[in-house]
Amino acid sequence: MKTLAILGSTGSIGRQALEVVGENPDKLTVYALTAAGNVRRMEEQVRAFRPALAVMMEEEAARELRERVRDLPVAVDQGMPGLLRAVQAGPADTVLNALSGRIGLEPTLAALQAGKAVALANKETLVVAGDLVMAAAKRAGCPVVPVDSEHSAIFQCLEEERESVAKLILTASGGPFWNVPEEELAGITPERALQHPNWKMGAKITVDSATLMNKGLEVIEAHHLFAMPYEKIEVLIHPQSIVHSLVEYRDGSVLAQLGRADMRLPIQYAFSYPGRWPNSFRRLNLRGQTLSFFEPDRERFPALELAYRVGKRGGTLPAVLNAANEVAVESFLNRVIPYARITEIAGEVCAKHEVSEEGDLATILEADLWARSLAQDLCRRG
Amino acid sequence: MKTLAILGSTGSIGRQALEVVGENPDKLTVYALTAAGNVRRMEEQVRAFRPALAVMMEEEAARELRERVRDLPVAVDQGMPGLLRAVQAGPADTVLNALSGRIGLEPTLAALQAGKAVALANKETLVVAGDLVMAAAKRAGCPVVPVDSEHSAIFQCLEEERESVAKLILTASGGPFWNVPEEELAGITPERALQHPNWKMGAKITVDSATLMNKGLEVIEAHHLFAMPYEKIEVLIHPQSIVHSLVEYRDGSVLAQLGRADMRLPIQYAFSYPGRWPNSFRRLNLRGQTLSFFEPDRERFPALELAYRVGKRGGTLPAVLNAANEVAVESFLNRVIPYARITEIAGEVCAKHEVSEEGDLATILEADLWARSLAQDLCRRG
Repeated sequence: MKTLAILGSTGSIGRQALEVVGENPDKLTVYALTAAGNVRRMEEQVRAFRPALAVMMEEEAARELRERVRDLPVAVDQGMPGLLRAVQAGPADTVLNALSGRIGLEPTLAALQAGKAVALANKETLVVAGDLVMAAAKRAGCPVVPVDSEHSAIFQCLEEERESVAKLILTASGGPFWNVPEEELAGITPERALQHPNWKMGAKITVDSATLMNKGLEVIEAHHLFAMPYEKIEVLIHPQSIVHSLVEYRDGSVLAQLGRADMRLPIQYAFSYPGRWPNSFRRLNLRGQTLSFFEPDRERFPALELAYRVGKRGGTLPAVLNAANEVAVESFLNRVIPYARITEIAGEVCAKHEVSEEGDLATILEADLWARSLAQDLCRRG
Repeated sequence: MKTLAILGSTGSIGRQALEVVGENPDKLTVYALTAAGNVRRMEEQVRAFRPALAVMMEEEAARELRERVRDLPVAVDQGMPGLLRAVQAGPADTVLNALSGRIGLEPTLAALQAGKAVALANKETLVVAGDLVMAAAKRAGCPVVPVDSEHSAIFQCLEEERESVAKLILTASGGPFWNVPEEELAGITPERALQHPNWKMGAKITVDSATLMNKGLEVIEAHHLFAMPYEKIEVLIHPQSIVHSLVEYRDGSVLAQLGRADMRLPIQYAFSYPGRWPNSFRRLNLRGQTLSFFEPDRERFPALELAYRVGKRGGTLPAVLNAANEVAVESFLNRVIPYARITEIAGEVCAKHEVSEEGDLATILEADLWARSLAQDLCRRG
């Protein structure tokens, strides 16, 4: 029996993780759930999964939840102290980090320091502070098992002998716009950017999928997760999202993981690893399927090139890229800047950053704040 | 350094195996080469790879080879005793069995009894006497590593926890006729049947690929090699021959092995296993590729259905199917019977066989001889 703390339980990944728990009641139990402010859904989840601890990041939401579930034996806590309590104390052996954005970093570090296995859906954790996090995992002897479908695929295809790997090939659906004419890209509305052809995900990652910044951040994530140089990481457009990623070995053999575009699969694998559990999810049926693959157009999707450059430069620059992109995406969703400005602003902030090689958390967070502030200025100017 | 005995060195797989040796002179050395009657090519191979022993199955060929290579320090032997000497005595630690047909069985058993690892390209070994061979491998503690591209793919995708496997999916190019209208199938000539769209192989296996009997035999091979019930083995037509096979796990995740249609890849893997060695072979490039998958048409290709039935029945029946098919294919290549009769005759011989459950070699060889004799009668009648 594995005992879970699920951070971000009311979000897309969190909800699907609870479906996985529902599929495996004999193998998974929930100790703690945390969410930002969605009290109604949290109440439902608390009633259904009976955690010992529920945490709302917003104080007002915590107060309301406490009212609503006073008939249940559940402790309700709030804010970052509550989040850290869910992660560090208590009987959870596995922490699913399904938070969105930079805020996921400290809980990942706290979980590893407390000796918990981390199922990581928060790629920002590794983009922002990959060296720090992987060193903490090594020190603690705790696995960081990826939940991103691409990284889960690679994780499943990787053989022990790491020097046999020739390259990692991350597939990308290409998002909704990979074959939209360039002149149309400028006028993309938030509504249109939020229509992903294959995956149902949160707003931030859906926009990142459209710009391919998501794939760029995944390249940086893969670099840290698999200790692989950027020269050995490639991106391949695969519109059907069935081949989730591939590993090419030095003998020319390529291993790939395939499956339906269903995040419950990599979530369950992160919990069942190194084993596999049966479930009732619909199966992939390849009969009649056609799988196609294309080179990504790096000129039309400059975010990919930018992320490679930033990743290779390293230091505080990936944290800056991530922060600037978070701000720019939010500004786009709030109709403050047009679609094409998202990647431009991320690039402009990176260009202005004086990279520090100091890898400690304080330096990284300082760079993050600096980048957010500058990105906000740039967004206001449009 | 691995030391090889290569059985069938002048055939298609044998020649490609020697290319692999040429790629890895620091990792592979050749102790023995054996061939049927191609003296000229054997002489070339002996001069290039300097084995200590060369064996010709035909006496006259052995005599001629002895003449031709008298300047070299190589022993020349002949017939089955020579073949068994190559396998059992001497310093070889790995035997590549690249013989074609039922004749490959005894050398495989002899190699395992002598404690050698077997790289198995001779699927008839497992079709005819799978239980016997796998039991011998277990007793000897020697691996049987498949060289068939499909089985190599599965071997590479299989995780240790065997109960996690939901099914094995063998891909089939479909051969040259998978989308040829049924009325055309009757008039197929040997010349046309020998044009395989993707793979360059020997004549027997190329015809078997056209009838899909090859895939049927591979299903039986997979059953033994991976100890998997027939209900968990499926066949999927994949005309591009890039995905060499797949394993579906019980969580819905599917692992696949991909590569160019180049037999040197699985041959090298059988030698390098469990590691992987670099090589200069051309790489798979998925950019611009389209991979498609179809349900096989079991009515148009009755050999597949027949092989499943025969495999499930077990006992001496798979040996009978294999023997009858060997005779029928040869008769077709000699223009004695038309294309459509190949599978019919195999089916007729199987229908007439009184299956014995005795699994010993003598019973199996007796059934084989009975089937060959009956198949020859049927072929003569047309």
